[in-house]
Amino acid sequence: MAQVLVLYNTPADPAAFDRYYRDTHIPLAKKIPGLRSYSINDGPVQALAGASPHLIAILTFDSMAAVNAALNSPEGQAAAADLPNFASGGVTLLICDTKAV
Amino acid sequence: MAQVLVLYNTPADPAAFDRYYRDTHIPLAKKIPGLRSYSINDGPVQALAGASPHLIAILTFDSMAAVNAALNSPEGQAAAADLPNFASGGVTLLICDTKAV
Repeated sequence: MAQVLVLYNTPADPAAFDRYYRDTHIPLAKKIPGLRSYSINDGPVQALAGASPHLIAILTFDSMAAVNAALNSPEGQAAAADLPNFASGGVTLLICDTKAV
Repeated sequence: MAQVLVLYNTPADPAAFDRYYRDTHIPLAKKIPGLRSYSINDGPVQALAGASPHLIAILTFDSMAAVNAALNSPEGQAAAADLPNFASGGVTLLICDTKAV
């Protein structure tokens, strides 16, 4: 499995961010081809070390090839292009293949 | 489900970090009670935005209550106490309840 991990820093207006994310960004991101699962934090993110993001999204794909195809698809490009519309606190977007240990 | 997300910044000696993580830290962390799944990146983490950590670990538990019990268990305390032994680049440790969207 490969994962896309998106950490959103606290935005200028958290309530507006949450509305936009729920009503606009999630529907866009769910159209991304090859997406196997998509979860976000339910309630606050607690940081036991380091800085706490406002929202964490974890998107799972079958492989890194599937992630790359997804990011290059029109739907992936549309979701990426939507980020500046709400991610006013900045965003960290990480991709990696994963293995169980 | 609840998740513990651990992002390790690039350490002083990545090869020594990787050896220690594999040989010492993973066996300690796998003893944590209530741990349902434990995965790490396989190959490099790519950052499309923001800074790239050296290693990402995602640990899954049934609930936030299970996470808190795990962190307070002797095994959880032992895994936490091991972090300064290898995480020389710094670490971000996030916990949250998650929901599928």
